[in-house]
Amino acid sequence: MGLIEREVVTALQKIFATADPRLKVGIGDDAAVVATQSQSIITSDMAVEDVHFKLEWSSAFDIGRKITAANVADILSMGGKCDYLTASVALTGNETMQWIENLARGMKHEADSAGALIVGGDIARGPKIVISMTAVGSAQSPILRSGAQVGDDLYLSSLTGWSAAGLELLTREVSINSSMAERALSEFSAPTLDYTCDFSKATAMADVSDSVLIQAEQIAEASAVQIKLDQSLISQASEFAELSSLADELKVDVFQWILVGGEDHVLLATGVNLPGIRIGSVLAGSGVSGVEMKKAPVSWSHFQ
Amino acid sequence: MGLIEREVVTALQKIFATADPRLKVGIGDDAAVVATQSQSIITSDMAVEDVHFKLEWSSAFDIGRKITAANVADILSMGGKCDYLTASVALTGNETMQWIENLARGMKHEADSAGALIVGGDIARGPKIVISMTAVGSAQSPILRSGAQVGDDLYLSSLTGWSAAGLELLTREVSINSSMAERALSEFSAPTLDYTCDFSKATAMADVSDSVLIQAEQIAEASAVQIKLDQSLISQASEFAELSSLADELKVDVFQWILVGGEDHVLLATGVNLPGIRIGSVLAGSGVSGVEMKKAPVSWSHFQ
Repeated sequence: MGLIEREVVTALQKIFATADPRLKVGIGDDAAVVATQSQSIITSDMAVEDVHFKLEWSSAFDIGRKITAANVADILSMGGKCDYLTASVALTGNETMQWIENLARGMKHEADSAGALIVGGDIARGPKIVISMTAVGSAQSPILRSGAQVGDDLYLSSLTGWSAAGLELLTREVSINSSMAERALSEFSAPTLDYTCDFSKATAMADVSDSVLIQAEQIAEASAVQIKLDQSLISQASEFAELSSLADELKVDVFQWILVGGEDHVLLATGVNLPGIRIGSVLAGSGVSGVEMKKAPVSWSHFQ
Repeated sequence: MGLIEREVVTALQKIFATADPRLKVGIGDDAAVVATQSQSIITSDMAVEDVHFKLEWSSAFDIGRKITAANVADILSMGGKCDYLTASVALTGNETMQWIENLARGMKHEADSAGALIVGGDIARGPKIVISMTAVGSAQSPILRSGAQVGDDLYLSSLTGWSAAGLELLTREVSINSSMAERALSEFSAPTLDYTCDFSKATAMADVSDSVLIQAEQIAEASAVQIKLDQSLISQASEFAELSSLADELKVDVFQWILVGGEDHVLLATGVNLPGIRIGSVLAGSGVSGVEMKKAPVSWSHFQ
């Protein structure tokens, strides 16, 4: 075991190696030393085998991408930039070195997309694979959930529901040969974070990891406003027709995927004249209105 | 489960609540916003049930203390101060609310001792309890493993071996009624971090989490020097006689505990005229000399 551990550490050090000048002391000492701003943003997300991912459904690379994306998305949703990540992983001992390396490469791929460095972590043994990451980022003026104003509109950075569609295909073991089905499966395995949608002028923002409905409720509560969702606006989104046809094929309500699905890591924002997809508006009052939806049972989500 | 999760989150928010002005945005948004220096120190440590701790051996409070101490110790060993912590926990669902709260209180207790705030984390479900923490700290001039100079002496902040002694008592199910045995069991369950030993003038420093021998080897390698341990110096340490009498009672080589035991979270430092316990010296050459010890098999340790 001693040898294996050393091999794993050496392999990870190589994969995460960087000459980035922000990293003063990297993997190899008791802790990493990095350059930071006067204000930092910190978030943590954990993924457990057979709860958040299944080895038969996702490649190691995609699992690495997905948990990294979940952490990065929480920084983006504060209007921030992700600078550093740590990755702690419990392994069962049954993994091949190639699987472990691919997991690390998936993390590195997603970190690179975000402009972030993986600066450390921990390896442990456990009965199931558990991946815990922490992201440290920066923002001049963080955008909170509490800033939504009456008169704002509500926006998504891109259409949600693809991840839920992928999960449905996998759990029902339906095989559909279409680009939509492929897209859904791919988004479920590892969501695509959208770095192009500029929400820097948003008044409030959240990462849609639980669902549009839950995060809209959280913004409404934190901002003491009412959020009115508008299904007719959503149905005008450019990708809606594709997702809707996939839902029809599976005899599912497409709005259930879009509003209750979760796991999309799309950004939900309030503001005026923002880019992205307009899906509702901010009114006086409380709670979320405009839709009648069954909320999916939320298991354990993060307490940030 | 939805209700339980909400209850857990609410309980943790209360326990970790703080009015500290360093925390700009606390638990409740996508991420925490904190004040940081131009240079930060980041480290992560993970503990897995039945690998790093056992529920029948340690209270929830002590488990919380121990994993927090492990993270804080990695910051202290860089010559730094721990400012912020995140705690991600996988729970099996069989824990009582009281157990979970006591775990959090143990974390809070140790964080308070370090002057650190717990600013976020994640909760997941898993087959075993897994606790993953990340510490973010600061230091004007971090003390690395690579700074040891020929002519330096080698110091411990306090005597190691107590944790290994406690583990021995527990695994052999020996019950000894003495203050030494109590001390050993207590140090195993939750190590005492020493904030009074001033190693700020150390040339190199490491946290003795794996063992004195392994960390001495790491300093020797990083600094390109030889480290000579001196058992006669160690046997002059004020607590040596007590630990030694406990070892005699169990018919164990006390130096095996002290040098190979690990899990002590004591600091190992090189320098001149440092406080603490002098245990050796730094010479030209490589490796560790002065002792003949069987190295314990190291399982999975952290890759920082």
